[in-house]
Amino acid sequence: MNIQTKKEYFNEVLRLESGRILSEFELVYETYGERASDDSNIIVICHALTGSHHAAGKYDESEPKPGWWDALIGDGKCIDTSKYFVICVDILGSPFGSTSPLSIEPNKNAQYRLRFPVLAISDVVNAQMRLFKRLGIKKVRAIIGGSLGGMQALCFAIEHPDFARNVVSMASTYATQPWAIAFNKIAMHAIKNDPEFKGGYYDEKQVAKNGLLGLEVGRIAGHISFLAPASMERKFARRYVGTDGLYELFGRYEVDRYMEYNGANFAKRFDPLCYLYTIKMMNNFDTTRHYGSLTAALSKVRSQLTLLSFSGDMLFFPSEMKTIADELKALGKEYYYEEIESDYGHDAFLVEIPKIENHIRKAIQ
Amino acid sequence: MNIQTKKEYFNEVLRLESGRILSEFELVYETYGERASDDSNIIVICHALTGSHHAAGKYDESEPKPGWWDALIGDGKCIDTSKYFVICVDILGSPFGSTSPLSIEPNKNAQYRLRFPVLAISDVVNAQMRLFKRLGIKKVRAIIGGSLGGMQALCFAIEHPDFARNVVSMASTYATQPWAIAFNKIAMHAIKNDPEFKGGYYDEKQVAKNGLLGLEVGRIAGHISFLAPASMERKFARRYVGTDGLYELFGRYEVDRYMEYNGANFAKRFDPLCYLYTIKMMNNFDTTRHYGSLTAALSKVRSQLTLLSFSGDMLFFPSEMKTIADELKALGKEYYYEEIESDYGHDAFLVEIPKIENHIRKAIQ
Repeated sequence: MNIQTKKEYFNEVLRLESGRILSEFELVYETYGERASDDSNIIVICHALTGSHHAAGKYDESEPKPGWWDALIGDGKCIDTSKYFVICVDILGSPFGSTSPLSIEPNKNAQYRLRFPVLAISDVVNAQMRLFKRLGIKKVRAIIGGSLGGMQALCFAIEHPDFARNVVSMASTYATQPWAIAFNKIAMHAIKNDPEFKGGYYDEKQVAKNGLLGLEVGRIAGHISFLAPASMERKFARRYVGTDGLYELFGRYEVDRYMEYNGANFAKRFDPLCYLYTIKMMNNFDTTRHYGSLTAALSKVRSQLTLLSFSGDMLFFPSEMKTIADELKALGKEYYYEEIESDYGHDAFLVEIPKIENHIRKAIQ
Repeated sequence: MNIQTKKEYFNEVLRLESGRILSEFELVYETYGERASDDSNIIVICHALTGSHHAAGKYDESEPKPGWWDALIGDGKCIDTSKYFVICVDILGSPFGSTSPLSIEPNKNAQYRLRFPVLAISDVVNAQMRLFKRLGIKKVRAIIGGSLGGMQALCFAIEHPDFARNVVSMASTYATQPWAIAFNKIAMHAIKNDPEFKGGYYDEKQVAKNGLLGLEVGRIAGHISFLAPASMERKFARRYVGTDGLYELFGRYEVDRYMEYNGANFAKRFDPLCYLYTIKMMNNFDTTRHYGSLTAALSKVRSQLTLLSFSGDMLFFPSEMKTIADELKALGKEYYYEEIESDYGHDAFLVEIPKIENHIRKAIQ
């Protein structure tokens, strides 16, 4: 598989939903496979909260893990890179290379930090549209995403209705509900008030080395919402860490160890400010905002929409995707909706590949 | 209603499940109503994680809120204190007066702090049995509790099978599952690593004045698990705080404000060490531990058991109570189980009084 990682600099203003602007910006993106001369084989992948442009493959054999959706994307796989030209763009606000709170603010000679504008899903989608325009891409075969990526996919369908023939949105919602906002509040509160966060002016190197406690805690909350009671039961049951005492106050169950380990690791590889900006973007996602109603928003859609929810999703409940499907039905739009049985929780869109492959295959035909 | 708040000192050893001992201990408890001469009207109430002995009534009119289950307990109410003599004991480990990590360790002239032994549900139940013995109470009409109180109720039924005629356990489980342990991990991790926690040797007064960030964060996680998507939707929807900007990074949704407010308040009225010891007790609750199986544990039961779960409970799922009911059925025991329809989440046992009254009335007849 041919992996290309590239960066594009845009010396142009991006007007944001907030009314603020980015006077210049950069986007990192990755492509897999070969672009057909007639552009008939382009598939856009939208990444989730803490993902990146690195969706598939390994840069070299020494890389411990391949890209985050490698089980789905590759030569001969469901999203077959021997047939399709796949693009995944690192969203604005991400710590993995696109313009973010850590970027140098034009004419300031200093990082934006808290001066960085709050971004909306529509902004990160508009930025991607600028990239596609520069690459001469006028229309794509499909856009596919889960969770925050599913929000982007839905946003493409509503705000850029002629851009994608097919749009697949998974494990997502039409507007983030208070349950998900509350989970994000744990991170928001823990990071903002962490003395080491220093009001956003923490030492990046030190935080990357030690991890910020607030981010660790926020990530533990995230992991709870990504899993499900049944998946935790299967993964951990009530097993206790062998070397800890059951009656030691800080003795740990296996589920504790998992949370601790993943929280600590995450806090060393993800930036706290980027995390705050990205969860704020998730909280603020509401397709109805500029249209008055979900019906009005969805009436714009001209792509063929495929909506997939997962029965055990504890972050974005199937009823939320179902609401979109019901509205599309009432509008007489063509769409496909399925609630996939899974007890893997929200993470199902990343791990239940055999259950989503056929749906995606049909959607990109 | 006649409210009596009392304290009993026990100059005797309490052997704990851990193998450690308390060489002396104190229990604060509250009673409502008048004890019948034949002891036929005694009802024991077991409080939940952050509750106390103050279950009902007001000490005087200036008290802003009555006891935590006042809607259920009082003259003419479901648990009618003009008929019944009601006792609620502050559990060991609580910050509200019974022996806890903040108590002075005998012969040390200093607080226990982290030297305090990890307590089990069976320990706090055994301590209550000591109090009942001292009060000359050999048998009670009923024991009633929800959540951690429901664990105590179940423990009474298994380990002291001749003590209560009726036992009501609500919104609880037979063994804490990894989902609930994971929620508690947020508090455990955030408190343990909070620099102001100082390894357990924080300044109590300062912490009570400012609140400990780790405890605030842990309590926010708790509140999420106590509510439910539907109750949050009804309570907050996507409403935004009027004075905050939608595109301010730290601008808040109403659900954020609720979490922030309750987290901060809680951290000023509850002690972090007591919280850690109490969630550890919850995590360690497993009725099967000393019996090899749930069947073996429940085979001890001689009380009439009433088990109530709530359909929207996101902390202890109805399936967990149902497991107990199924085992009792297989054992041929008399019991009553009902899953009550409610979208108030785990908090239903505190707020859905009209839906539980009849069940409790029947159980204590």
